[in-house]
Order: sequence, then C-alpha cells, then structure tokens
Amino acid sequence: MSRQKNLLLTPGPTPLPPQVLEALSRPLVHHRTEAFAKTFAQVLEDLKWVYRTKGLVLMMTCSGTGAMESAVVNLLSPGDEVLTVSTGAFGDRFAAIQRAFGLEPRVLPFEWGRAADPDALRRALRERKGARAVFLQHTDTSTGVVNDVKALGRVVREESDALVVVDAVSGLACEPLETDAWGLDVVVSGSQKGLMNAPGLGFAAVSERAWKAVEAAKLPRYNFDYRIMRKSLDALETPWTPAISLVVAQAEAFKLLRAEGLEAVWRRHDELAAHARRELTAKLGLPFFAKDPANILTGVVLPEGVDGDELLAGILREEGISIAGGQMKLKGRIFRLAHMAHISKADVDAGIAALAARLAKARAR
Amino acid sequence: MSRQKNLLLTPGPTPLPPQVLEALSRPLVHHRTEAFAKTFAQVLEDLKWVYRTKGLVLMMTCSGTGAMESAVVNLLSPGDEVLTVSTGAFGDRFAAIQRAFGLEPRVLPFEWGRAADPDALRRALRERKGARAVFLQHTDTSTGVVNDVKALGRVVREESDALVVVDAVSGLACEPLETDAWGLDVVVSGSQKGLMNAPGLGFAAVSERAWKAVEAAKLPRYNFDYRIMRKSLDALETPWTPAISLVVAQAEAFKLLRAEGLEAVWRRHDELAAHARRELTAKLGLPFFAKDPANILTGVVLPEGVDGDELLAGILREEGISIAGGQMKLKGRIFRLAHMAHISKADVDAGIAALAARLAKARAR
Repeated sequence: MSRQKNLLLTPGPTPLPPQVLEALSRPLVHHRTEAFAKTFAQVLEDLKWVYRTKGLVLMMTCSGTGAMESAVVNLLSPGDEVLTVSTGAFGDRFAAIQRAFGLEPRVLPFEWGRAADPDALRRALRERKGARAVFLQHTDTSTGVVNDVKALGRVVREESDALVVVDAVSGLACEPLETDAWGLDVVVSGSQKGLMNAPGLGFAAVSERAWKAVEAAKLPRYNFDYRIMRKSLDALETPWTPAISLVVAQAEAFKLLRAEGLEAVWRRHDELAAHARRELTAKLGLPFFAKDPANILTGVVLPEGVDGDELLAGILREEGISIAGGQMKLKGRIFRLAHMAHISKADVDAGIAALAARLAKARAR
Repeated sequence: MSRQKNLLLTPGPTPLPPQVLEALSRPLVHHRTEAFAKTFAQVLEDLKWVYRTKGLVLMMTCSGTGAMESAVVNLLSPGDEVLTVSTGAFGDRFAAIQRAFGLEPRVLPFEWGRAADPDALRRALRERKGARAVFLQHTDTSTGVVNDVKALGRVVREESDALVVVDAVSGLACEPLETDAWGLDVVVSGSQKGLMNAPGLGFAAVSERAWKAVEAAKLPRYNFDYRIMRKSLDALETPWTPAISLVVAQAEAFKLLRAEGLEAVWRRHDELAAHARRELTAKLGLPFFAKDPANILTGVVLPEGVDGDELLAGILREEGISIAGGQMKLKGRIFRLAHMAHISKADVDAGIAALAARLAKARAR
C-alpha cells in the first residue's frame, strides 16, 4: 500500500504533537534576548513541575546519554565507590560511562524483564559500604520494566549516605516520579520521550545535597559542568548556545502536558498500557517479556522461527509504522510496542492490527 | 513601531532559510530506519563537501563548545604538551576546556582584533618543542578576525609533529577552508552559523593522522568518544539518539549551499562583507575593531559615552533587529554586525539604517 503518512510507535523518539512541530518551524530568536529568556524561564519552571521538585533543573544540548554522563562527571571523583543497579541496556550504559571515566562501578544486575529488588539492593549496600552514589533506572526502555524508585531510594537512604541518581530518560511524564518526595539527588531525562519533543535536549534535576557533591567532585568536565550551567541561570541563559528551536518546541509541549495535568497524564499511560496489553493478548496471544512492566511500552516475545527484525522492517516498509525491536541480547527476539507520550489508543490499535496481520502471514509460511 | 517580524543579524544563530524551517516542522522519522540512514548519509557526504575532505566527518548533538571539547578529549592524554593560539574568546575557551581536563596548555595570545602571526607561532614551536597538538581558530566570532589557517598549519607541520586542531565553528561555509589541502587534523564546527541550520549539531572532521591519536589518547570520554561514533557509522547510525529534526533540516540547508556552489558562497561572503564595510563607513563613520577582519561579521567601535548594550537593546525592542554586542572585555564597547550565512544585502542595509538612526539619536543627547 503506498502511503505518505508514518506512524511512530517507538519509545523515543515519540511522535510530535502538531503544536510542537509548528513551534519547531518558527524563525529563530537569538538566545541572548529577553524573548528567549522568557521562554527558557518558562521551560525551567515546567521542568520543575514535571520533575516534582523545588530544586534546579538544568538543560543541556545532548542525547539522553549525554545527560547520563553529566550526572557521573559532576558527582564523582577518581576512586569513588559506585553502585550501579542495572535492569537492562541503560543500566549497563551507566556502568560503561563510569568505566570510561576511570571508575570501577560495582554493578548489581537484575534479570532482564525484572524490576530491581529493594532487598537485594539493601544487601549489596550492607556488604560493601562506602558507595558515594547509587545509580538507578526509572524505566528501562530496553526491557520495558519500571522500577520502584521510591522503595529503592528509601533503601539507599536507610543504609548509606550515597547519592541517589536516577535515569528517567524514558519514564519522565509517563510514570509517577517524585524527585523531592522520594529524596532523589540527580534525575536525568531527555526531550524525546514523555516530554513529546524532538530529540536533542537533556535535563538534570539536582538536589541541594547533590550540589554539595558537585562542588567537591573531581572528575573532569567542561561542556557538562553543572557549576557553569548554574552560574548562567542567573541571567536566564545557558553557557553555550542552546538548541533554540527545541527549547521553543519544549515550551509548546509543556503547554499540552500542563493543560492535561500531570496525574491525568500518568493515568492515561496506565490506561493505554492496560488497553494495549488486553488487545495484544486477544489479537496475538504471545507472552510479554517484562515481569514488572512499565506503562511506556510492552515487550512481546516472538514465536520461535519468526525473525523480529524482518517482521518489523516489513511493517515499516509496507505500512509506514515504526515499532522497535529488541536491543542487545534481545535483538530479533522481541518487539517493543510503545504506548506513551503523544501515542493514542487509535495509534496502538493500528500497530496491533499490523502486527497481527504480519504474524499470521509469518506463521502460515 | 509595532512589528511581527524579527531580523537576526547575529553571528550565530543566523537566520534560517524557509526550506530549513519547513524541514524542522516535519514529523519525526525514527533514527534506526533506512529513511533516516539515507538522510544521515547525505549529510555526511555534504559535510565532507563543505569541509573539503575525503576523511570522515563526525556528527554530535551539542553546541560548538561540545564539539571543541570532543577534539580535546579524543586527541590528548594527561601530561601532553599543548599549544593553544588565542585570537579571542573562543581561543580562551579551548584553553579553559584543556585546563578542565587537567592539561596545562601553553597559550599564545594575540591582541584582540589581530590575526595570529605565523612567525610568532614558529618561534613558540621552536622555543618549546614536543607539543602534541596546536589549537587554532579559523574565525573568532568574538573579535571578527580571520586567521590564515593555511599558513599557520604549514608552520606547525614544518616545525613539529603536532596535530593541527581548528575551531571553524563560525567560519565553515563562510570563509575558505581546505581541511585536506591544508593538512588540518581535526576541524570542529556547528550547525548554527554558516551551515544555516538551527543550533544543536556539532561536527568534527578527523584526519587519518588524527585517528591514530584518537586510538592512543587517554583522556576520559564517552558521550564524545570518536571511536564509538566511528563504529556506529558502519550502520549509518549515531551511537546515541541524534537530534533528528536538526539532521533533516541540515540536509535541506546543504541543498541550498550545494545549489549555489561552495566557491560562490565564499565569494558572496566576500562581497557582502565589503558592501557592509562601505555602508558602515558611509553611514556611521566609526572605526572597525578588527585589523584582520573576517567576512562573517564587522565589529565596530562605539564612540565614548555610548552604551553599546543599551543601543542594541533599543534596536531589538523597537525594530526587532538582533545585533550582537561585544563579549568579555569588549562588552558595551563594540557591536558586531553579522553578514554571513542566510543574511542578505537587504538585511544588512536594514541593520545599518537602524544603527545609524539610533546612533544619531544617542549622539544628539
């Protein structure tokens, strides 16, 4: 079927609302003007709102990986003990960043598809004391798992003085997250998932406790130096030229989120995830990958003999629908249907219809 | 006068052509698809074209500062000798990045407004041998100077084995630059200046010689690791989610540059700079700041008693025209009228008219 229209059912980038696309197409305003400062100030307030924090939220021009790196280099010094929980590819990425900067993280891995177990974290903290920071994932996009960040954060606080660092790149504005109430120290995220914007902006919420660590941290950094960013905030500026179009678009996306209300946004994700799983079960009847599934996506295990990458490539080629495959060790074995951000019930239904038709064909072969 | 239209006469961001704005507003394509790979491959070829290189050009999601940092961390190891030429704020920034990563650069500063002197560079290289890399600026946006990168590069090659690293953030696609023919090892740039795109993409051309240094370099890096980027290029991907909209827009901007031809683009900048200077002299009669002026902008020294920042704020407020003021020690003392990228003769004339009117008023007071 020929087509002009594509449908993104992927967990980042997610499809952009028309208001955000319109904002991207506006002529640039210079970033050292009152007009831009006003937009930037609004986005900073919106970020505090979505992060549920009274603390500062910083904005960077980077991918989610850049935001993750910023947390590592701003909090730590050579030789620091680090405990890195990993519930998938993005936990492993935190550890890879730490190793690249000369640290030797102790990795606490959980079976892919399972959430991190707070008791296991407690044991790990008791076994080896002295961790300067514990790194967690809110949701891990690779496995579609959501972690109980509230419980995990509490365990860290009870057992140690470690800072709690959370990768909320794919979970922010999709699943409940309470930066202040849960005592989280640095929470990083990006523009291209729940925040319904194009990729290119990274964010980091930084607690008062974390700011003390930032002052003391000895790992080298410049582009991602939180101290330089904070200083520029006094003039409502970024230290380096920001991705102006993306900031203006982010302000539009936040208008939509604000109009709906954050709790309503979370509820919508909860309902759409439940709908997607009901329909997937009814139409495909295949097992789900995650035992502790997040509301952002559903990972579905493909039958033996079906090549997932080929299946999804066919759907993209013939129907214009992008659905993500498995990453790393799950490559070709699962698909990950996103039901987050600006993805609607109708979008999900269309994706499931395409999957069901293709799978029937693949099985008939 | 009330208005709905703004005019950017600033040296980054520069105004975007309508074709680029349209591209920014397109629905996202996923970055792990053939459709995106095709666009990305085209942009990579276009980058080689504009850089005049047969080597690889890497793309990052960052500001120009991020691209500068990438050159430092990918080429150097702790303890390396570094010689950093500085003809303005951006030379100083290279040194600041180097210091942040524990290096002790030897800075060779030139009077602001003057180009770097190849003989002085030669003496510096003879005085203290063993520099692993020499850092240069193509044009320095803070002073509006253009350096003779060809001559400077030749001196480095004649006197040492040092790598030649060039900041061409504001000069690429505005002033002649020959990456291969001039023997440049790493040349960094950004999307928001001569490349007529919104800010948010950084680029680095990397020579064969530089790749050897990248393999040997010991400074820590992950987000900006050229080795990881190069590996992803095999699949025409970026290792981290790219700023998709900006990549699609960059492809459109390159179509315009390609249609005009690179030498014609350089010539246009040459002619527009000459026109701007004739008009500035005729209408304002004020001295120019740079002794070795670039074609990207003209810095003009304001008369005693005129507050530059106030003057420019008034023009922006009342006429919607953004003109840059002085940076660092030049703050309030000069203005910098850009005549680069998508800025036209009509735009420049409008800016000069506004400046002349305002200055007459300021002097009459």
